[in-house]
Amino acid sequence: MAILSDAGTEVLVPIAAVIGIAFAVAQWLLVSRVKLAPSGARDKDALADSLIEEEEGLNDHNVVVRCAEIQSAIAEGATSFLFTEYQYVGAFMSIFAVVIFVFLGSVEGFSTKTHPCTYSKDRECKPALFNALFSTVSFLLGAITSVVSGFLGMKIATYANARTTLEARKGVGKAFITAFRSGAVMGFLLASNGLLVLYIAINLFKLYYGEDWEGLFESITGYGLGGSSMALFGRVGGGIYTKAADVGADLVGKVERNIPEDDPRNPAVIADNVGDNVGDIAGMGSDLFGSYAESSCAALVVASISSFGVDHDFTGMCYPLLVSSVGIIVCLITTLFATDIFEVKGVKEIEPALKKQLIISTALMTVGIALISWLALPAKFTIFNFGEQKEVSNWGLFLCVAIGLWAGLIIGYVTEYYTSNAYRQEIFPVQDVADACRTGAATNVIFGLALGYKSVIIPIFAIAVGIYVSFTIAAMYGIAMAALGMLSTIATGLSIDAYGPISDNAGGIAEMAGMSHRIRERTDALDSAGNTTAAIGKGFAIGSAALVSLALFGAFVSRAGVKVVDVLSPKVIIGLVVGAMLPYWFSAMTMKSVGKAALEMVEEVRRQFNTIPGLMEGTTKPDYANCVKISTDASIKQMIPPGALVMLTPLVVGTFFGVQTLSGVLAGALVSGVQVAISASNTGGAWDNAKKYIEAGASEHARSLGPKGSDCHKAAVIGDTIGDPLKDTSGPSLNILIKLMAVESLVFAPFFATHGGILFKLF
Amino acid sequence: MAILSDAGTEVLVPIAAVIGIAFAVAQWLLVSRVKLAPSGARDKDALADSLIEEEEGLNDHNVVVRCAEIQSAIAEGATSFLFTEYQYVGAFMSIFAVVIFVFLGSVEGFSTKTHPCTYSKDRECKPALFNALFSTVSFLLGAITSVVSGFLGMKIATYANARTTLEARKGVGKAFITAFRSGAVMGFLLASNGLLVLYIAINLFKLYYGEDWEGLFESITGYGLGGSSMALFGRVGGGIYTKAADVGADLVGKVERNIPEDDPRNPAVIADNVGDNVGDIAGMGSDLFGSYAESSCAALVVASISSFGVDHDFTGMCYPLLVSSVGIIVCLITTLFATDIFEVKGVKEIEPALKKQLIISTALMTVGIALISWLALPAKFTIFNFGEQKEVSNWGLFLCVAIGLWAGLIIGYVTEYYTSNAYRQEIFPVQDVADACRTGAATNVIFGLALGYKSVIIPIFAIAVGIYVSFTIAAMYGIAMAALGMLSTIATGLSIDAYGPISDNAGGIAEMAGMSHRIRERTDALDSAGNTTAAIGKGFAIGSAALVSLALFGAFVSRAGVKVVDVLSPKVIIGLVVGAMLPYWFSAMTMKSVGKAALEMVEEVRRQFNTIPGLMEGTTKPDYANCVKISTDASIKQMIPPGALVMLTPLVVGTFFGVQTLSGVLAGALVSGVQVAISASNTGGAWDNAKKYIEAGASEHARSLGPKGSDCHKAAVIGDTIGDPLKDTSGPSLNILIKLMAVESLVFAPFFATHGGILFKLF
Repeated sequence: MAILSDAGTEVLVPIAAVIGIAFAVAQWLLVSRVKLAPSGARDKDALADSLIEEEEGLNDHNVVVRCAEIQSAIAEGATSFLFTEYQYVGAFMSIFAVVIFVFLGSVEGFSTKTHPCTYSKDRECKPALFNALFSTVSFLLGAITSVVSGFLGMKIATYANARTTLEARKGVGKAFITAFRSGAVMGFLLASNGLLVLYIAINLFKLYYGEDWEGLFESITGYGLGGSSMALFGRVGGGIYTKAADVGADLVGKVERNIPEDDPRNPAVIADNVGDNVGDIAGMGSDLFGSYAESSCAALVVASISSFGVDHDFTGMCYPLLVSSVGIIVCLITTLFATDIFEVKGVKEIEPALKKQLIISTALMTVGIALISWLALPAKFTIFNFGEQKEVSNWGLFLCVAIGLWAGLIIGYVTEYYTSNAYRQEIFPVQDVADACRTGAATNVIFGLALGYKSVIIPIFAIAVGIYVSFTIAAMYGIAMAALGMLSTIATGLSIDAYGPISDNAGGIAEMAGMSHRIRERTDALDSAGNTTAAIGKGFAIGSAALVSLALFGAFVSRAGVKVVDVLSPKVIIGLVVGAMLPYWFSAMTMKSVGKAALEMVEEVRRQFNTIPGLMEGTTKPDYANCVKISTDASIKQMIPPGALVMLTPLVVGTFFGVQTLSGVLAGALVSGVQVAISASNTGGAWDNAKKYIEAGASEHARSLGPKGSDCHKAAVIGDTIGDPLKDTSGPSLNILIKLMAVESLVFAPFFATHGGILFKLF
Repeated sequence: MAILSDAGTEVLVPIAAVIGIAFAVAQWLLVSRVKLAPSGARDKDALADSLIEEEEGLNDHNVVVRCAEIQSAIAEGATSFLFTEYQYVGAFMSIFAVVIFVFLGSVEGFSTKTHPCTYSKDRECKPALFNALFSTVSFLLGAITSVVSGFLGMKIATYANARTTLEARKGVGKAFITAFRSGAVMGFLLASNGLLVLYIAINLFKLYYGEDWEGLFESITGYGLGGSSMALFGRVGGGIYTKAADVGADLVGKVERNIPEDDPRNPAVIADNVGDNVGDIAGMGSDLFGSYAESSCAALVVASISSFGVDHDFTGMCYPLLVSSVGIIVCLITTLFATDIFEVKGVKEIEPALKKQLIISTALMTVGIALISWLALPAKFTIFNFGEQKEVSNWGLFLCVAIGLWAGLIIGYVTEYYTSNAYRQEIFPVQDVADACRTGAATNVIFGLALGYKSVIIPIFAIAVGIYVSFTIAAMYGIAMAALGMLSTIATGLSIDAYGPISDNAGGIAEMAGMSHRIRERTDALDSAGNTTAAIGKGFAIGSAALVSLALFGAFVSRAGVKVVDVLSPKVIIGLVVGAMLPYWFSAMTMKSVGKAALEMVEEVRRQFNTIPGLMEGTTKPDYANCVKISTDASIKQMIPPGALVMLTPLVVGTFFGVQTLSGVLAGALVSGVQVAISASNTGGAWDNAKKYIEAGASEHARSLGPKGSDCHKAAVIGDTIGDPLKDTSGPSLNILIKLMAVESLVFAPFFATHGGILFKLF
């Protein structure tokens, strides 16, 4: 048996979660020490601040007031968008909750009788009707946790952005710490919250389910579905919002009117900054929470029909939660390296500091996983493998988690290599793309597309190796644990991810508040490093999504009683072909949505420039609210069709074509979606940084392409604009597409297995 | 038994092939009546011609001489490129032939003893060494036939282009007939030639193989591999050539120097016109010949282990060849509708005339298939289905062929809908893209990409239905026959396809020869209709490639003795993921190649404009030859890496990872590659026609976006340039990627089954 007792597990998991939350609160308190309102009674610190401001020639309290104003406008816009979004999504979720209940309840004809369990024949399992009920409850729980995660993230980000701007007056190091701490608030809150809610739900459900762990963990999968459904709308809606505003603002502001980014005269500028918070922060928060919830659920549901579940080994059963608990502690230590142990002094130290975070957390986590595998797992146990039980050792399982963790790092670094403009090696992919701007936008786009396609190669090999090793060792449980391994450092990953848009916003606020060029340079440096790490974060998200959905796919197949998914059967192959098409259908919708919404925004911005006198001269203020409204309306309206496509496909395919075809669809969507997602993200990231590379003019080569406004730069701006919807709307949403369809199939598996495939039954 | 006797089959197939060749020769004779050299003794016809010329104000014999000069320059460039290409490819093919012989010979350790057959246990089969020898021979035969097909096509096209220009002086109807007849020469030569060579090869091989039909048709698959390998290099090399020249010419000529397309002052203009002939004509000819050869081979190899092969029913065995024979006759009748029965009088009648060709041939062919299915097939027979025999009726098989045929038409029409600018319906996809040019190149590109993604949906459903029906009826044989059904009207399809580049060239020659605007308008109208039908042709090529490669995949799996390809096994799933990545890797290479080669071309064209005095004024001639050389060198150099990727992947995967992983790779590449190919082709086609739509200014809406040189038009040109490598290099080459990997796996299947999977055997 394992060294760690069940009682120990019962204590360890919640304690880790609470420590994470406490740490987040502590970071928030530290951030809140930067005052936005000029205080009447000046303490010593404030006096020191004021001296610095004088040095900068910025001892102007109006600046602080203006920052506060802008911040509140952004926060207001973001809050109002999220509330509108949640209303619509809430209505959808309620309907979907009913669908879950009715579909799953119908499996045994709404009977309330217990029946012998499927995998432990000697035990009695709870009736399907109650599984339906608890699945519905955990679905709603997942959705609510996701909403809370996204909303809190947005709140923190809009709280921190202006504070980062103000700290930038004191130096780049101070600003970095403020932005990074704020990111950490979000990272730790999300990771801990997700773990805690899941843990509490399991314990509460156990009160009803008792010995029936099959039913218990089957119902728990609703948590993943809820989290992921919410994430879908968050990502798509937020993604459309942010890119409609961004593209709209750039097309008129930068290209037509020749005014700089974030210029307060641009009517879409507030909407653009709101977009960062609802898309990149709230959307991404929901997304990664969804991945985390799903991989935990996938691991739990497979474990529940393996020896852990059959033998009622609670500690072994909770191994996925224990890994996440260790992850929180490891990330906590890692964060201290950035905020307390090392200090960022210059602009050049920002990117290395962030990258160090990833390496430190991965290295520490490897030790952490080894420790918890030794403590929590018996030396030998069996894992369910499509009808058979497969023997696995604790070190084998350690290897599964570790390979996921390191595959994530490799994917992250490859992403960085292909999207960073700073790479000082013989081959500079982004600089190559920037160089192609010499012959115009067309060659820039051709080179960028080629780069995106190429960037798929190594991540796919890393994923393939990860799949092969973990699958061979511990079947689908191994893959689920590899996915969880990749996500085990999620708190650090999210801190870094959230840091980016906060810095971006900080720069916007500096520009709008009319602060000096020097401040803007500092926030730009923060932002640029954030761009690269955001690309790394996207790499993680896609890689983990691939593993998660494969694990969910495996769990679905197990639950649906399928033993073989044979490509050589017509039902599977048509599923495979159609499934591989879905990412394209979905991308077509999201790209078109951004395009359409951006056109509306362009019309509005042009209208304002043309009709509001004194706008270009800066004597009158533009109507920011109208642009915010356009982005809100467009994204709410446009997120419905792609959302419906993803949510309905598994239902329609499962009901009418059955589990074999659905298996094909899931596999097809997975293998094709991963490629589209990676290439879209990296192409977009490369164009963005190629443009920044020309703008920064940091090398002889870069200066030969610039300056801003040159033909090369214009070509680069076109590439950047095309990349926006690819990297921030389509690409990241595709993660959710592949995960969500898999988890939805898993939740509905009992229904499909009983009533599915109507069409084939008829003919 | 079937109504048609074996002797009847022995007569029918070669007669159909000979009729096809005779028809092609007759068409060629008709085209050759247009004289390029002004004749001394004027007959009545010539006098009438001269009158027409006078009407046009063009009774200038210099024009004819200039046309002849330009034509010979184009023909020379194309011939010299193809010879260079064939030298390199020839060397590669020789090496590969040795590889085939050694690998396949090693299956039984180079033994020369006969052994009991795998599927007809009571018969003796020939030794593997001789199968290796005959496979090598048929490989070389396929490669040579492909070379001949491509080369003849190019010769005819370069013979016809100037003649079309000259006929355009007499009216659009005359020019149309000349271009279309020339296309028909190519179409019928290719279809008949491919059939005849295959038929002769089977009969010759039978002299050695006698009763051993398993071995006979296994060796015949080399024919498909040879055809397809050659096609790969033809498509990739030709694709890079044509787009490097096109992009290079456009970027400097149109964008920088503001001179029209095909202006004789542009140094890259001859290279551009050569490109059409080596890429769109020779490359496409090889490609479609490859598809035809492969689907025939796939059907034959499956039939050889079904009741046809086991019972030695020669007529049943030759059913695929009989379908193709009927196809030639049907297409012959169809061609008469365009050349003799109806007459094209105005510009608006061109596109309908071409589209009518497709509908007529499909309708007639449906009757033809029904007839031959009734005549050549027994009422009931059995088909090999992964270890079992499945009973099929002749009408069931008719349905398989017919569904392929009609699915092709649907795919063609959807392609047309998404790429035609002339669509007069409520939704105008291309006009939407053109409209997006209002806000610049970025929105144009975003809308174009979205359109391409969207255009995948219906073709994929059509393919899925085709697969499901034909698979359910007759397993992999059904799919092979569906593919052959789609290709049964190949003669008409190729005629239409070849017509496009011929018209394009004709326009180029008119411009370069300094003919009047009126002539150019006529050739432009021919060209524009050709663009749309070219898109349809690409749709056919991709659709048939999907079916062909699935059929080949099935044949490979049968030959390799695999009964199940289970997605739930780690070996298969990693193959699936990596296979789905290959189209991206391949596209990255080809896109980058075009980009690089285009940059070289841009440098050279710029250099000539800057250093040759009097070039812009038209007083000195540019150095055309240098541009031709750059395109040639670049494409030869750049076609090697993508070619090697495709040729080596099955060998490496099969040898090191074994047949299970290879099955995964093939399935992954298939399901992902089809999507990339369709979306790339249609995106490119839509941009091209959006640009043409603005240039033509045929509607109120179009005029509001134009004229040439406006900001909208510039944005459209950028889109068109980006689309060039997508639609003419990457997209069409992907067909070959998926087919070629499958046919190569099939040929090497005995080797992989015996010696494959070294890596997994070691660990």
